[in-house]
Amino acid sequence: MVEQNRNELAEKRIGIVGLGLLGGSLAKALTKYTAAEVYGYARQQAVCDAAERDGAVRGAFTDMEQLIETVDVLFYALPPELIPPSVARYGHLLRPGMIVSDVASTKTMMMNAIYKVLPEGVAYVSVHPMAGSEKGGYEVAEEDLFIDHPWIVLRDEQHPAWNRETHAYFVDMGRTLGARIEELDVSEHDCLIARISHLPHAAAAMVMLVAGRGEEGYRRLSLAAGGFRDNTRVAGGNPVLWRDIFMSNKEEVRASLEELSRETKKLIDLLADDDGVGVEAYLSEAQSIRKIYEEIEEKKE
Amino acid sequence: MVEQNRNELAEKRIGIVGLGLLGGSLAKALTKYTAAEVYGYARQQAVCDAAERDGAVRGAFTDMEQLIETVDVLFYALPPELIPPSVARYGHLLRPGMIVSDVASTKTMMMNAIYKVLPEGVAYVSVHPMAGSEKGGYEVAEEDLFIDHPWIVLRDEQHPAWNRETHAYFVDMGRTLGARIEELDVSEHDCLIARISHLPHAAAAMVMLVAGRGEEGYRRLSLAAGGFRDNTRVAGGNPVLWRDIFMSNKEEVRASLEELSRETKKLIDLLADDDGVGVEAYLSEAQSIRKIYEEIEEKKE
Repeated sequence: MVEQNRNELAEKRIGIVGLGLLGGSLAKALTKYTAAEVYGYARQQAVCDAAERDGAVRGAFTDMEQLIETVDVLFYALPPELIPPSVARYGHLLRPGMIVSDVASTKTMMMNAIYKVLPEGVAYVSVHPMAGSEKGGYEVAEEDLFIDHPWIVLRDEQHPAWNRETHAYFVDMGRTLGARIEELDVSEHDCLIARISHLPHAAAAMVMLVAGRGEEGYRRLSLAAGGFRDNTRVAGGNPVLWRDIFMSNKEEVRASLEELSRETKKLIDLLADDDGVGVEAYLSEAQSIRKIYEEIEEKKE
Repeated sequence: MVEQNRNELAEKRIGIVGLGLLGGSLAKALTKYTAAEVYGYARQQAVCDAAERDGAVRGAFTDMEQLIETVDVLFYALPPELIPPSVARYGHLLRPGMIVSDVASTKTMMMNAIYKVLPEGVAYVSVHPMAGSEKGGYEVAEEDLFIDHPWIVLRDEQHPAWNRETHAYFVDMGRTLGARIEELDVSEHDCLIARISHLPHAAAAMVMLVAGRGEEGYRRLSLAAGGFRDNTRVAGGNPVLWRDIFMSNKEEVRASLEELSRETKKLIDLLADDDGVGVEAYLSEAQSIRKIYEEIEEKKE
């Protein structure tokens, strides 16, 4: 099975656009775990040189045109807002039968913009590998980044640029890199990610501000314990990166914040009504979902 | 200094009411680190026997009257809602000059109830040792539980049951057990704890529910990553315990939820206005406070 995948994957030359953490890791992983010819694009010559020196790619270019001439698959690993403009600019160079993909963490806005500029006859299937860290850059790229992490391949049956064969190609790719394959409809993806990633980030930031702001803040923080530390950890994330994530998914982030607001109202009402039974039921439901989550996590290990 | 504390602490016989995690740990720690005579009360004879066998106490009783006859300091380590009724029931046995204290995690409601039934001439200074875990019971009690954890002694200058000498006694006690001493006015305490402990708990529960509830819940949870895991960890806490904590501090928990609600509204408005600069500024402020918090944490180590 793995051999078969390797053969299928070997047929196409893959060009990674952007050799940061995700792109660099993709290049290294594809080179290690498949027989595909892997090429890269980076703005900086030093990054291209490093990727070539490491053997992560057969070749790397600071010129997108050279990359596009060389490959069959153009795999974008740039910040999401840079991808549609790049497809618009270089679209005329894409050949029928080529494949475009990306690793962005939010999809709807970006995919709509790409669809507007994608030439006919070019396939596009989007992928969201849920791996990475706060750190970025080629220096932290690693070939095993995807192992045991979700690799979401997005289905968009409504759109002619999506097709089963290309979808299957990216499913095979993720599996070959050791990832856990998930398949989602485009319409589900951003809603889901908002609730398991963007809302927790927003909640952590808000709790951090309520607790730590103002005159009393320092004293409060100095008394905070482990629960607080874990609950607010993600608030330490890069605000520019998270601004881009929030803005690229603003409808779903807003909707999830509206849901949080309704939950807050429920708890406030239970406390105002002195309803201890209701508070316990509320916390019990949260605990029982947390237990389901912990069971899922244990199965993964 | 330590010797001096030991001598002062040695003068009084201390009775710990309730030998669970906190009470049992207090007994063990006081016996190990001070020369005080330590006694205990537990409902179950088996717990009394275990504490005696361990040498955690000189003696342990299932009879409150016996404990009160034997000691000078009555240190309550029961769930907070049980403390005022106990003081009411046994108040007539308390002798002038005796000291009452407790280790409850919320104070205002409980202290007001205790003040109503505390006999004149008995001193009362409340303590909040911020140590413990999800697990409870004498089995998990340990003599070093308080080391390097905050030990908050509450100042209530308005009330005649509070006095400097008794306050200093508990400050010395915490220091001798290796804790980090903090002193707070009663009026500050519950407000502060709501924001660094109760609000993060509520936020974790609410995020857990928004993310994991309903038909889509399981799939979402199966895709959640490390940020989600940390952010919602405390939602796994015992709902009965947390109901009691919330209800014992309901005004401040409500007020902190109202603050969270205002923050949520701010973020929703920024997204609705497509205000990326505002979102970045918001997340930057949260990140900068998180950094201050991390510096505080590093200093503790």
